[in-house]
Amino acid sequence: MKIAIDGMGGDFAPQEIVSGIDLALDEVNDLEIVLTGNKTLLEKEISSIKNSSKIEIIPTEQIITTHDKPRDALLKKKQSSLHKAIELVRDGYAKGMVTAGSTGAYMAISLFTLGRLKNVTRPAIGIPLPYKDGTIGLLLDVGASVDISTREYLIFAILGKVYLSTFRGDSNVTIGLLNIGAEEEKGSKMTLEAHRLLKENFKEFKGNVEPHELLDHKVDVIVTDGFSGNILQKSYEGAAEFLIEAIKDEINKTLARKIAAKFLKPALKSAFNKLNYENFGGSPLLGVDGISIKAHGRSKRVAIKNAIKVCNNLASNNLIENLKKALDSEKFMEEKKL
Amino acid sequence: MKIAIDGMGGDFAPQEIVSGIDLALDEVNDLEIVLTGNKTLLEKEISSIKNSSKIEIIPTEQIITTHDKPRDALLKKKQSSLHKAIELVRDGYAKGMVTAGSTGAYMAISLFTLGRLKNVTRPAIGIPLPYKDGTIGLLLDVGASVDISTREYLIFAILGKVYLSTFRGDSNVTIGLLNIGAEEEKGSKMTLEAHRLLKENFKEFKGNVEPHELLDHKVDVIVTDGFSGNILQKSYEGAAEFLIEAIKDEINKTLARKIAAKFLKPALKSAFNKLNYENFGGSPLLGVDGISIKAHGRSKRVAIKNAIKVCNNLASNNLIENLKKALDSEKFMEEKKL
Repeated sequence: MKIAIDGMGGDFAPQEIVSGIDLALDEVNDLEIVLTGNKTLLEKEISSIKNSSKIEIIPTEQIITTHDKPRDALLKKKQSSLHKAIELVRDGYAKGMVTAGSTGAYMAISLFTLGRLKNVTRPAIGIPLPYKDGTIGLLLDVGASVDISTREYLIFAILGKVYLSTFRGDSNVTIGLLNIGAEEEKGSKMTLEAHRLLKENFKEFKGNVEPHELLDHKVDVIVTDGFSGNILQKSYEGAAEFLIEAIKDEINKTLARKIAAKFLKPALKSAFNKLNYENFGGSPLLGVDGISIKAHGRSKRVAIKNAIKVCNNLASNNLIENLKKALDSEKFMEEKKL
Repeated sequence: MKIAIDGMGGDFAPQEIVSGIDLALDEVNDLEIVLTGNKTLLEKEISSIKNSSKIEIIPTEQIITTHDKPRDALLKKKQSSLHKAIELVRDGYAKGMVTAGSTGAYMAISLFTLGRLKNVTRPAIGIPLPYKDGTIGLLLDVGASVDISTREYLIFAILGKVYLSTFRGDSNVTIGLLNIGAEEEKGSKMTLEAHRLLKENFKEFKGNVEPHELLDHKVDVIVTDGFSGNILQKSYEGAAEFLIEAIKDEINKTLARKIAAKFLKPALKSAFNKLNYENFGGSPLLGVDGISIKAHGRSKRVAIKNAIKVCNNLASNNLIENLKKALDSEKFMEEKKL
């Protein structure tokens, strides 16, 4: 199994990327890595790791930064490490791709290079949901497709359902709709109609999920439009950041608190880490014809390792074939011409 | 100044309601309270407080519970304490009203009884934003009007601007738009158009605010549709609840942590309280012809006192007159026939 990695994407590239690859190669048998980026830099990093023999470097000239607009990254940086890694997936040389680079560029280049799967009009980014019971769910979309039609809630439901059942190796996956009320009659005109369609077409549909019960594991897959999903994602992040700052301020108020905090720091850190979806293996772009995973820009080696393992798992279990089959066979596609 | 209070609304009514009134009467001169609800219960509570002479009880028969649907509360419980309190505002007997009862019933009865101000098509619920610098901002709407037109972003901007400048006694109030990107060209079709209109009509408009920078005080008033605002509000609540549980779990893992936690509990509590908008005086329903404030259902005496003080402040500074003037004089109302 060959996985392509963008060696230059992310705040800690290439060092933490290469270290993450090394960890993944330790843990996964039969894995090989194709690494794109600056040859000199990558060779230097690789020289100091154990598993260097399982890594092939494909040199590229350009680097996409967070300052590049997605459009410019797509059109003007065709020789970038990110472009090349995605092209390796398109050409079948690698079975999947991981990057920690810019989200906008990642979406644009993946969509353009890999193309959409049949019956998919717009793609969706999913994020893993760290449920309180220790299981992992999926929320999609969180920003790839901001203006969607009600039909796309159904497509997102299929994408999420197949993704999660492939990931888990278990086809029992329930579906919910992000909404602002628990009852069927709550929500906007758009979510009311989406609710009706989801109920009509999926026996796995279990109704609305409200944002404050997001991590209660009411359902396995939660679908929403990219605008609402992004609001939710950034609100959870904002609340956590606010609380971290507020707790630090409070602790610094007295010496006794500072001392007590020394004993509690690991507890607090671990509590905040539980909320952090970035620790759970990256976000897939779903609906494109290839496995493309985005790790957070701040990913260090363990996050990179986890993203590679998720990518490898999805590739080994034939995510794209499963998606194609499901998208082809869903009855509502033809029957209703939605 | 007479303020009406729903004596039966909220999880801790009537005891904490009456205690909150007593605290408010201690702090505010020339305040009188008109209290609606069950005569026997209220008289019993009032008998034990200092300021009982400044409270007039208006007996009512019915009580609205959280199980009543808003429609039923509106149509079938016309003899309720909430109805009566709002009617006292409509009839001019009280200058404003506070309830800790059901949000849906509060919105429906306020809107029906007080009516909309001229030029307002849909009302908005505002929530106070506890900014990191210690000041208070306002986010609206958080759920009163879920499907809005782009014109209503402008109305919400006026409502928020006048509310906050009346509350602060300072007309320098800036306005922002809740959105999923900082740049002007980011967002949904709806927010792009709202951005354009806000920029064209308000010199106070300062651009987009993203959910994770909600409490950074980029602007004073943040406008959004009721769906997105509700998603955001419930996400902040959900993240805080998740973290409280996760921190408790982590603390309970070892004895050393449990002991350290004893010293840090006040610090943690105070940090989480900073995020809790419920401590900042209640949420106004804006756009109706009367001052109507909702305190959280779990409000205890201090939260009730704060809500009464906010209500008194708004009434003393002529919120409704200020709103009428602004809604009448905004140029875009006539010019563009939006």
